[in-house]
Amino acid sequence: MNKNTSKGRILLSLTGLDPDVWMRELTRRAPERAVVFEPDGEADASIEYAVVWKPKPGALAKLPNLKAIFSIGAGVDHVFSDPDLPDVPIVRAVSEDLTARMSEFVVWQVLDHHRLGPRYRKQQVERIWEEDRSQPAASEITVGIMGLGELGTDAAAKLRCIGFNVSGWSRTPKSVDGVTCHAGADGLGPFLAGADIFVVLLPLTPDTREILAKDLFARMTRRGPLGAPILINAGRGGLQNEADILAALDSGQLSAATLDVFQQEPLATDSPFWTHPKVTLTPHAAATSVPISLIAPMVTQMEAHDRGEPLVNLVDRKAGY
Amino acid sequence: MNKNTSKGRILLSLTGLDPDVWMRELTRRAPERAVVFEPDGEADASIEYAVVWKPKPGALAKLPNLKAIFSIGAGVDHVFSDPDLPDVPIVRAVSEDLTARMSEFVVWQVLDHHRLGPRYRKQQVERIWEEDRSQPAASEITVGIMGLGELGTDAAAKLRCIGFNVSGWSRTPKSVDGVTCHAGADGLGPFLAGADIFVVLLPLTPDTREILAKDLFARMTRRGPLGAPILINAGRGGLQNEADILAALDSGQLSAATLDVFQQEPLATDSPFWTHPKVTLTPHAAATSVPISLIAPMVTQMEAHDRGEPLVNLVDRKAGY
Repeated sequence: MNKNTSKGRILLSLTGLDPDVWMRELTRRAPERAVVFEPDGEADASIEYAVVWKPKPGALAKLPNLKAIFSIGAGVDHVFSDPDLPDVPIVRAVSEDLTARMSEFVVWQVLDHHRLGPRYRKQQVERIWEEDRSQPAASEITVGIMGLGELGTDAAAKLRCIGFNVSGWSRTPKSVDGVTCHAGADGLGPFLAGADIFVVLLPLTPDTREILAKDLFARMTRRGPLGAPILINAGRGGLQNEADILAALDSGQLSAATLDVFQQEPLATDSPFWTHPKVTLTPHAAATSVPISLIAPMVTQMEAHDRGEPLVNLVDRKAGY
Repeated sequence: MNKNTSKGRILLSLTGLDPDVWMRELTRRAPERAVVFEPDGEADASIEYAVVWKPKPGALAKLPNLKAIFSIGAGVDHVFSDPDLPDVPIVRAVSEDLTARMSEFVVWQVLDHHRLGPRYRKQQVERIWEEDRSQPAASEITVGIMGLGELGTDAAAKLRCIGFNVSGWSRTPKSVDGVTCHAGADGLGPFLAGADIFVVLLPLTPDTREILAKDLFARMTRRGPLGAPILINAGRGGLQNEADILAALDSGQLSAATLDVFQQEPLATDSPFWTHPKVTLTPHAAATSVPISLIAPMVTQMEAHDRGEPLVNLVDRKAGY
């Protein structure tokens, strides 16, 4: 950890992730840089880069020569939650591996609802042999994706490959092959009224906090072959008004939900989501951040930045993502 | 039913399907032909075509002017089970809709095993919040498809789209884009030794009856990131040696199975499959035969055949499928 080197050191600041595997992969990929685990690196002038997941508030502000912050994970709300965040570039994790894993999860859960997984599992328990012959084909279903960044765009392409119709909504206008795109406040109404299954991959920002609330559900007016709309949230728990989700499930405004994220994680043992008959719950497992796929591109960017080249996958601080 | 018409009549012979919807769709699509429901049409010389699902044994042999038999469903074992089957061309159902529905099912069940659906559902019941960080990506998994006809080929393409490696095995050599193809008895060993999840879409013939048996499972030697192989049978129940499947699950030779078909359907209430912790069971619901998508191509072929054009999607009587 204390070897001398001409290259700037890296601070690793993690909460809730095993530091050993990340330390090992960083050391392997950046052998010329010392890697310092927070809090040992606090106020260390030799640290030029930080690799973080929910970094300790205030820790980054103490580094006088910090050049850039690298987020583990595509979302960066965990970085902005530091009130003393220094004014240096923030780079989000973008990797084919992370994107592919998220799309696996999205296609899996869309199909599980579309192909009546909960119904057939209940029938198995009750020893009931009964095919639902009204099963719609994927071509009769529209999946609406909220958030058309790297993740939403890839999920859209894969859902289309399986045969689903796909629409999308994003803050700023986007164009995605084969996807009916809506944008901004004006586009939200038509988007919400036109899909059967909603997949949420939005970033968590002041604008999107608790966007999944009763006002939104009331505008999901389509009643297609699967009945009331289905909600799949693989974005962030902070997007959810959880009381409103429970109320919408109980009233039948939503027919089912898959929730991978929650306001509070781990989910409290007494949360009603665990036992709700219309809820599929996964433990923030939609897209695991795997060191081997995320660290190499970070180190490549550090080297490029040292050569004076621009950073890519930069976060827009004003937009908050 | 008794209207006079110059065109040959159609016999509809079904077991276990609601005749009304099929009768209605046939009448709508072939308004110039009378449709006769078995047994009313027995020995009727005006009948030229038969549309069948598990036809009544002997019924087709009594039709002196039968020109062709159209199977509802891609598999035709239900036709060959008639010992008095007349020697006329047999046409299998091929429709984009049927194929797409089967691929939905295959991708759904492959993902459900790959993405640890059974584990996370059990955790939900037990209120356990625990991510399996060893989750492999689809790119680390090989899905082996047994049967590379219309269904297997389409499923392979869609699994590849999601990111899986795909291999395939068929009786006769095939070439499928991006798929490692094996064929015949010589190809079976390498195929069985090289996949993590096996998807069975074989036709049921004397050669394939009870092919899913202990000898086959013993040759599935790969132990990849998901452990012992997983079996998904969406073909025919007759392909299964069900005692051997249970034994392989219990011994750990197979780590899990999804079975949509069984030797006896509906599955007996006292079958051990209902409650087996490693079994996902669906009631022959993988790909519903929908009248609206299957009848139109049949009528189109009847018209073409009347004009002297050749039939397509013909069954090879010698191969039995």
